[in-house]
Amino acid sequence: MGELSEGLTQVLIPVAALIGIGFALLQWFLVSKVRVSAVADYNGRDNGHKSSLLGDAELETGVRVPEVTAKCAEIQHAISVGATSFLFTEYRYLSIFMGVFGVIIFLFLGSVKGFSTKSEPCTYNEGNLCKPALANAVFSTIAFLLGALTSVLSGFLGMKIATYANARTTLEARKGIGKAFVIAFRSGAVMGFLLAANGLLVLYVAINLFKLYYGDDWEGLYESITGYGLGGSSMALFGRVGGGIYTKAADVGADLVGKVEQNIPEDDPRNPAVIADNVGDNVGDIAGMGSDLFGSYAESSCAALFVASISSFGLNHDYTAMSYPLIISSMGIVICMITTLFATDIFEIKYENQIEPSLKRQLLISTVLMTVGIAIVSFFALPSEFTLYNFGGSKVVKNWHLFFCVAIGLWAGLVIGYITEYFTSNAYSPVQDVADSCRTGAATNVIFGLALGYKSVIIPIFAIAVAIYVSFSLAAMYGIAVAALGMLSTIATGLAIDAYGPISDNAGGIAEMAGLRHEIRERTDALDAAGNTTAAIGKGFAIGSAALVSLALFGAYVSRAGIKTVNVMTPKVFIGLIVGAMLPYWFSAMTMKSVGSAALKMVEEVRRQFNTIPGLLEGTGKPDYANCVKISTDASLKEMIPPGALVLLAPLIAGTLFGVETLAGVLAGSLVSGVQVAISASNTGGAWDNAKKYIEAGITEHAVSLGPKGSDAHKAAVIGDTVGDPLKDTSGPSLNILIKLMAVESLVFAPFFAAHGGLIFKLF
Amino acid sequence: MGELSEGLTQVLIPVAALIGIGFALLQWFLVSKVRVSAVADYNGRDNGHKSSLLGDAELETGVRVPEVTAKCAEIQHAISVGATSFLFTEYRYLSIFMGVFGVIIFLFLGSVKGFSTKSEPCTYNEGNLCKPALANAVFSTIAFLLGALTSVLSGFLGMKIATYANARTTLEARKGIGKAFVIAFRSGAVMGFLLAANGLLVLYVAINLFKLYYGDDWEGLYESITGYGLGGSSMALFGRVGGGIYTKAADVGADLVGKVEQNIPEDDPRNPAVIADNVGDNVGDIAGMGSDLFGSYAESSCAALFVASISSFGLNHDYTAMSYPLIISSMGIVICMITTLFATDIFEIKYENQIEPSLKRQLLISTVLMTVGIAIVSFFALPSEFTLYNFGGSKVVKNWHLFFCVAIGLWAGLVIGYITEYFTSNAYSPVQDVADSCRTGAATNVIFGLALGYKSVIIPIFAIAVAIYVSFSLAAMYGIAVAALGMLSTIATGLAIDAYGPISDNAGGIAEMAGLRHEIRERTDALDAAGNTTAAIGKGFAIGSAALVSLALFGAYVSRAGIKTVNVMTPKVFIGLIVGAMLPYWFSAMTMKSVGSAALKMVEEVRRQFNTIPGLLEGTGKPDYANCVKISTDASLKEMIPPGALVLLAPLIAGTLFGVETLAGVLAGSLVSGVQVAISASNTGGAWDNAKKYIEAGITEHAVSLGPKGSDAHKAAVIGDTVGDPLKDTSGPSLNILIKLMAVESLVFAPFFAAHGGLIFKLF
Repeated sequence: MGELSEGLTQVLIPVAALIGIGFALLQWFLVSKVRVSAVADYNGRDNGHKSSLLGDAELETGVRVPEVTAKCAEIQHAISVGATSFLFTEYRYLSIFMGVFGVIIFLFLGSVKGFSTKSEPCTYNEGNLCKPALANAVFSTIAFLLGALTSVLSGFLGMKIATYANARTTLEARKGIGKAFVIAFRSGAVMGFLLAANGLLVLYVAINLFKLYYGDDWEGLYESITGYGLGGSSMALFGRVGGGIYTKAADVGADLVGKVEQNIPEDDPRNPAVIADNVGDNVGDIAGMGSDLFGSYAESSCAALFVASISSFGLNHDYTAMSYPLIISSMGIVICMITTLFATDIFEIKYENQIEPSLKRQLLISTVLMTVGIAIVSFFALPSEFTLYNFGGSKVVKNWHLFFCVAIGLWAGLVIGYITEYFTSNAYSPVQDVADSCRTGAATNVIFGLALGYKSVIIPIFAIAVAIYVSFSLAAMYGIAVAALGMLSTIATGLAIDAYGPISDNAGGIAEMAGLRHEIRERTDALDAAGNTTAAIGKGFAIGSAALVSLALFGAYVSRAGIKTVNVMTPKVFIGLIVGAMLPYWFSAMTMKSVGSAALKMVEEVRRQFNTIPGLLEGTGKPDYANCVKISTDASLKEMIPPGALVLLAPLIAGTLFGVETLAGVLAGSLVSGVQVAISASNTGGAWDNAKKYIEAGITEHAVSLGPKGSDAHKAAVIGDTVGDPLKDTSGPSLNILIKLMAVESLVFAPFFAAHGGLIFKLF
Repeated sequence: MGELSEGLTQVLIPVAALIGIGFALLQWFLVSKVRVSAVADYNGRDNGHKSSLLGDAELETGVRVPEVTAKCAEIQHAISVGATSFLFTEYRYLSIFMGVFGVIIFLFLGSVKGFSTKSEPCTYNEGNLCKPALANAVFSTIAFLLGALTSVLSGFLGMKIATYANARTTLEARKGIGKAFVIAFRSGAVMGFLLAANGLLVLYVAINLFKLYYGDDWEGLYESITGYGLGGSSMALFGRVGGGIYTKAADVGADLVGKVEQNIPEDDPRNPAVIADNVGDNVGDIAGMGSDLFGSYAESSCAALFVASISSFGLNHDYTAMSYPLIISSMGIVICMITTLFATDIFEIKYENQIEPSLKRQLLISTVLMTVGIAIVSFFALPSEFTLYNFGGSKVVKNWHLFFCVAIGLWAGLVIGYITEYFTSNAYSPVQDVADSCRTGAATNVIFGLALGYKSVIIPIFAIAVAIYVSFSLAAMYGIAVAALGMLSTIATGLAIDAYGPISDNAGGIAEMAGLRHEIRERTDALDAAGNTTAAIGKGFAIGSAALVSLALFGAYVSRAGIKTVNVMTPKVFIGLIVGAMLPYWFSAMTMKSVGSAALKMVEEVRRQFNTIPGLLEGTGKPDYANCVKISTDASLKEMIPPGALVLLAPLIAGTLFGVETLAGVLAGSLVSGVQVAISASNTGGAWDNAKKYIEAGITEHAVSLGPKGSDAHKAAVIGDTVGDPLKDTSGPSLNILIKLMAVESLVFAPFFAAHGGLIFKLF
């Protein structure tokens, strides 16, 4: 097969990215056609709660449509303002962090050769001269800042779209389930495509700009570019942890007082924490998830590029083959565009039970199409045979080997997605068993839920293990990196179905708060139940790809730190391994405790408002939403620091004090242990949530026997759901970032650790 | 320092073991002085429930003492009969397993050299001839059976003593808290010393008998003797899992209907599951724990002996140095005897809050004294310098190096014990915080409890890591093995304070059932609260030692399988690592689900009895205890098979299909992941139990504000306690055995895997 010319490659990548952005804007335009503010002069300043709260019957006639629309607009506005103001506050803190950490990167990396500006012999490209270590320090810092900004932008845009789409989904739900589904899905797609295309474009531009300085020194160029991944993931960490604490403090607090004590429905506007709860969905599940998956994408691209740069692609300056990871992502954008049409234009949703199968079908379609896409890219972008760097040696690889590596990552992702769906959807026996265990109370519910989460780990781990074995055997570390990219190649579709979840959740909240009729709330509930499952699937992808990405980064770290073997049977490595395996527990303890403490504060505030505001429960008094928003904001900003510090300091301490080998052990240990904790936490939480929804919906005879809302079994299910909240939305999904971030940080700092690390062992 | 002569060593070891047995019998004699059956003709056949249930006031006068005593005797008899009959049924199943697995061992190991009876060149002792592989097959099988029998015997004896002591503790509680404490502690000591001495004696005798055949071939002798550890641990696995399911099915079932639904106290004789619950404490916490710690002890001795046999001790036939692990254990028995006197004779308990400090003091005293003991043994039993086998090479070691190895294991054990106490005792803030979170309901209680468990992992892991680093660096794998032995050297004390817990728990149950006055129940409750903590400490020891033992066995396996390096950066090892890290989750899912399902059956049966037996709740009808006992028995016997099969088959499948390197990865992965799951599960459960007890006891102002029994906070605490039951008594403690058993099994089968393993990779 003939390879693409360098010129064509230079054109294709940015064009694909721009097409992706254009497609996202098109979807946005289509969503925007649903009008939210029908009454132009209704500016949301009057106190319109009572009428809409009590006016369900009248609304059925459709006479009051303008008022309902305006009501929805008002609530949407409140959520959007809350989310925007939280994110700006968060980003203010993070900009300080970025500045400080940027300086640390510069100082650590600059000190490797004592800030010398002299060129030095290349590490891998023997016999040639490469740019000085100081350049690496400067450009790594720039790449770090670029990655951080892109990550922040991804999360922010996602939040903007979601808060723009939520009320529109509610309003479309009046026309039928199918219409509402399409709006929610399109909105998810806006986020998915913007994020995928934006990530690709910034990386492409950065590489080309860095090239102006680095010229032919690709080794140095791609070494510096790994800072991009570090920036992306460190922002993602704070986004996930901060957003996760925010959303779950509000959710748990709202549920404990509202649902359990006061017996009012979820999302009832009388609940003072309800706005904070809905804001939380957008800052946690949307902005956090967006940053997270962007981080995975950035890191797997960087890991692949770094390994490629020291392989024959880089040494021979084969630009097209070098850009293979970026071309795969470009192809992914195109494939996902085609896939989106299936959901929005080809198949139509008529019944509630079609939602989940339809979302699953999206995964399948994108996977099948992308397999063809990978084959095309592999045959046109790669020479038929080449050599890849393999821990000091080299490995001869054929182009179809790489096809298999990418494809197995892609299909492993599908397996993880499907298994996650099986364990978290209330259409199957695992969740139904958990619901059934509510018969004997909350304790058995919790026991069965935890057992379900543990069990759901088995097949994903085997899928990841097979993907690792095949891609590792075929193409060493490069294989792992492109397998991760394969899993993430359909990220636009994955993010679309993932973002769909919180949007539907918000839509339900708005329906309840705006006092829409019961039927509409039922429709949004059906969307939301499927959304719980897709959120779990999204987390499954995030975790699976994180495992592969981390392994690729770990491999790159081992190469760059000059470690020969990571032998478990040496004390240095083994203690790293066991301590590394402990870190996910330490981290989870911090984040769960944070959610618990913040929720306690929220509970006290909500109770205080119910006790002191006259007429609140009767709907005549107005709750103080802002105070609850403030509690969530303050708690999340304060509490995100210790877990963030743990993740960022652990590799620095291990590398500086104990050296590169112990750090290698730490990375391996946290990877193999963290994956399990993350998968089980996120699936347990998803299952509890849907077990509760299963009882509430009461569709089957079995479900009816457990319900209705307010029954003992339902109360037990609510307790399980509440326990699951921090597991599935705070500690679980943050663990992906823990393992990725520690790996990429180690990679970036590897030259420093190799030069100056292991102080303790040097002392004794 | 001069070494002990071989003859003296030959005498000292069995003498120490016999002294230990004698000391245990003395304690038994002292316990037996409390008379349980005062009325000779009261044979327990009449229906005496009603009078004792209602007669609290009269009992205060002391007039009815003979009747109370008889009542206690009757209940004790019922518990003892239930426990004995369960264990006999369990052992019948296990004898089939022993037969089958014995045949498998023989066939696998015999096939290594095609069942040839020819002598062959030694593996390590080059130039000499060793016994044929067939002899290894025969003697490994014999050692396996011996280990299995000793394990069964240990568990059985423990149960006998515990069921003998429980009612005596109840009766002594009438005289005061101090008297009751001494009886409970002495009874625990009986078990501790019998088990430690018995384990040592059987091993000593086995070695000497095997020597009759092996003569100078120590390499073959100690290779075969590793079967002893395999036998010990495989019985322990079934004991722990079966006993754990039994006890928790009964406990959860009894609590859910009795405490939560019917609002009757714990251990109320009207509850049909109450006898099964009390039987459970004896078969799970006592017999299971006994088998478990015996297994750890047997395995660490075997691992140390095997490494020693291929080091200079073995090659030079230095019998005393070779017996160093056994001499350490002998010294441990003597030290623990002295330590016991502090609890039983020197310090006296006068107030309830002295119990826990006193038990903690026992740990400290035994650790300090044993440090001196280790120094003495190290200087008299070892040459001042020698070489140890170190993965193909050899390492020069001095006798004081080994002193440090053993001592650091011992002190790491103390650290683990103290940290466990801190996280599970209601005297400190962690448990009090968990209790406080009950204010906002069961959900926050569960969240805080899980977070506590995760957090409690941190320091034990650092303690284990330091112990590993120091002992590994000083004396390679032999160092790890003797560090494990160090941690277990005070096993008699550890087991005494551990067995004390379930005995006190039972004593409380008997007090409640026999209708003793409230004050006495309060005393036994105080004993029991401390018992929860010591049970958690015991589990901490079991887990910590299991980690060290497994690593030592793992090292021995790597040597015996002829693996050069276990490099994480190879696909074979890495997939083993990640799958191995998954196994504890799979295993936990099975065991927790088993407890949940069995508990559901128990709940249904208890509900049925309350609904159908007239006058049961009023105390005029008699519950059908036997049916509940049967449900627990059937469930545990049926449900222990799948998790048992998982643990036993995983190494066989990994080794046979994927080869020795993947298996090495599996062992490392399950070790570093399993330790975390085990520690967090057992501490979370212990903390929940004591948070509940904290609210019930209402000693501080804070506790009073949460209580009393029946308050909302207390109900939330009961839910946490119930969730914790399977975590702390079934899945958590079984995980020790998972990691140990997989390692020792791999070691025993290593020659087979090395010869015939890796079928899948050979095919492709």
